[in-house]
Amino acid sequence: MSGTILIPAETIARQIRTVFDAWGMTPEYADVAVEVMVDTDLRGIDSHGIGMLPTYQRWFDAGLINPRPDIRVVREAGAVALVDADGSLGHPPSVTAMRLAIAKARTSGIGMVVVNNSNHYGAAGYYSLMAAAEKVIGLSLTNVAIPLVVPTFGRDAFLGTNPIAFAAPARKNQPFSLDMATSAVALGKLNVARRAGRPLPVGWAFDDRGDFTTDAQTALVSPRLAPLGGSRVLGGHKGYGLATMVEILCATLGGVPLQGDRIGHFFLAIDPAALRPDGGFGADLDGLMDRLRAAPPADPAQPVQVAGDPEYAAFAERTRVGIPITAILAGEVEAVCRAAGVPFLFGG
Amino acid sequence: MSGTILIPAETIARQIRTVFDAWGMTPEYADVAVEVMVDTDLRGIDSHGIGMLPTYQRWFDAGLINPRPDIRVVREAGAVALVDADGSLGHPPSVTAMRLAIAKARTSGIGMVVVNNSNHYGAAGYYSLMAAAEKVIGLSLTNVAIPLVVPTFGRDAFLGTNPIAFAAPARKNQPFSLDMATSAVALGKLNVARRAGRPLPVGWAFDDRGDFTTDAQTALVSPRLAPLGGSRVLGGHKGYGLATMVEILCATLGGVPLQGDRIGHFFLAIDPAALRPDGGFGADLDGLMDRLRAAPPADPAQPVQVAGDPEYAAFAERTRVGIPITAILAGEVEAVCRAAGVPFLFGG
Repeated sequence: MSGTILIPAETIARQIRTVFDAWGMTPEYADVAVEVMVDTDLRGIDSHGIGMLPTYQRWFDAGLINPRPDIRVVREAGAVALVDADGSLGHPPSVTAMRLAIAKARTSGIGMVVVNNSNHYGAAGYYSLMAAAEKVIGLSLTNVAIPLVVPTFGRDAFLGTNPIAFAAPARKNQPFSLDMATSAVALGKLNVARRAGRPLPVGWAFDDRGDFTTDAQTALVSPRLAPLGGSRVLGGHKGYGLATMVEILCATLGGVPLQGDRIGHFFLAIDPAALRPDGGFGADLDGLMDRLRAAPPADPAQPVQVAGDPEYAAFAERTRVGIPITAILAGEVEAVCRAAGVPFLFGG
Repeated sequence: MSGTILIPAETIARQIRTVFDAWGMTPEYADVAVEVMVDTDLRGIDSHGIGMLPTYQRWFDAGLINPRPDIRVVREAGAVALVDADGSLGHPPSVTAMRLAIAKARTSGIGMVVVNNSNHYGAAGYYSLMAAAEKVIGLSLTNVAIPLVVPTFGRDAFLGTNPIAFAAPARKNQPFSLDMATSAVALGKLNVARRAGRPLPVGWAFDDRGDFTTDAQTALVSPRLAPLGGSRVLGGHKGYGLATMVEILCATLGGVPLQGDRIGHFFLAIDPAALRPDGGFGADLDGLMDRLRAAPPADPAQPVQVAGDPEYAAFAERTRVGIPITAILAGEVEAVCRAAGVPFLFGG
């Protein structure tokens, strides 16, 4: 990529932190958000790390994000709890919530914590991996306030890309780690196709008559993403159903108004040792992952992978060489720094 | 359908029960299995009701199913438990497990029960709807021992169609009820296309070189179903990831050997009143469902539906007129009756 520079994770962290400080964010919450964002960049999920900073600036400027929130557990009953994010950026209340879910899983075998009154929490998979790092199974869901996904038989976008992230701890392998939007593709992929002048694959996005469009320019005017599965005949109603399930568990269960400014998140932690105290879960998961990777590939040059493999490869590479920042993103970050009155650290 | 007869649910129940009795099934377990199977037929899911009886006969004859199992809770810790099905047909231990999960949700806010050492449990959605009928959110998953689904980049089938069923109780509406295989389509749809002499849609099944095939005959020789999403570019890796997640939560968490004879099931119940004691959950779910159904359709003749709508319509119709039994299925049931030495009840 022409104009792309490689920036060490430490520099990215310092850059985001100086901006958050200038925005008046509570220091301990800034720490958490920076940690989540940089980890996301290291894992290769460029859409949800520092790439979100210009968007976060717009939201802060519009008063949509509370820089000094009072994040609290407002309800707790047995193995479940509800956390009020008080309008915070989503990362700090989500880390609080998943920590609480893990603690509950340790004592009750399972723990569920829902966050309401929140905002964008970055990559869903960060939180499920928090659980896996503690040898606990993790599930992380969020609704997305922006209507992007068209319900089966519908004309217009109604639901967000409502992702599902699931991680499970193995013994020898890195955790199984699935992190997926319930739409056929993320909106970012339409932008990539538009910039490259490429047609969209049939099955990504609809036009305003409910037919698939291959024109990225048109598709981006008023996005109508297909749910996972695409058309009805290929199972699009299943992706639509999953997106609605995520909406119910995050927004409806959390008491978050439909298509308002705020969103909700759902975190689940399950201690496999509660059912298999011999540690057999991790060993059997190794067996499953090893057998999947050893399955005969259709093309010998492209082995079968297991969810998480691409992100672990990116993490290893980027920890070594740094995180690629495109010239466009560098320019946007520079503008954010200028507006915040803090030094831009990716120059020269 | 030529040769299709309509049989009242009561007659179907009596027919299955006489067969189960002849097979020596414990009476109270026979009651449960019959209830689940007939409810499934009433909801229009023909593949998982009495249509399974010929297959169950083969399994009973092969000694794969224990007719008089000792179904027990073998481990219990806080809000979770493990049930040993002792080789039972899946329905009885699954009803036991979901009841226990619901009871735990009442006291702990959430309950999770895993079943191991089990067999086919019918339609996944029966158990999630058990929860919804008790005003509790329900999740029901099962792995499937038969390899049918090809992992992304793989050549051969490895995973089962591993379904996800999720139900949530509304206040005015029938429960939201999603019940979906994590494959693009069920195997049964390939059979329907074959019998009708129709080509398969591109995206359902692969040939042995990893390309999609439209030839139902070839596709059925050694089934290689696409995961939900189909090709990699349309998100097939997400369906593959979901199928693996279900495998992990049912088989790996339950300690069920990979691709052995037995399978596992996973049941989760969440009491929404634990987080929203004002009953706001049901009211807000009504709002979501009502707004989805009122969303502008692409084709005015085909309104937007919500997961569960087709099954509720089938239930109303079939309760009134009876359950359609094709001539082929009637013949198969007659053969089952003859082998069991019991009267065939669908004749003349």
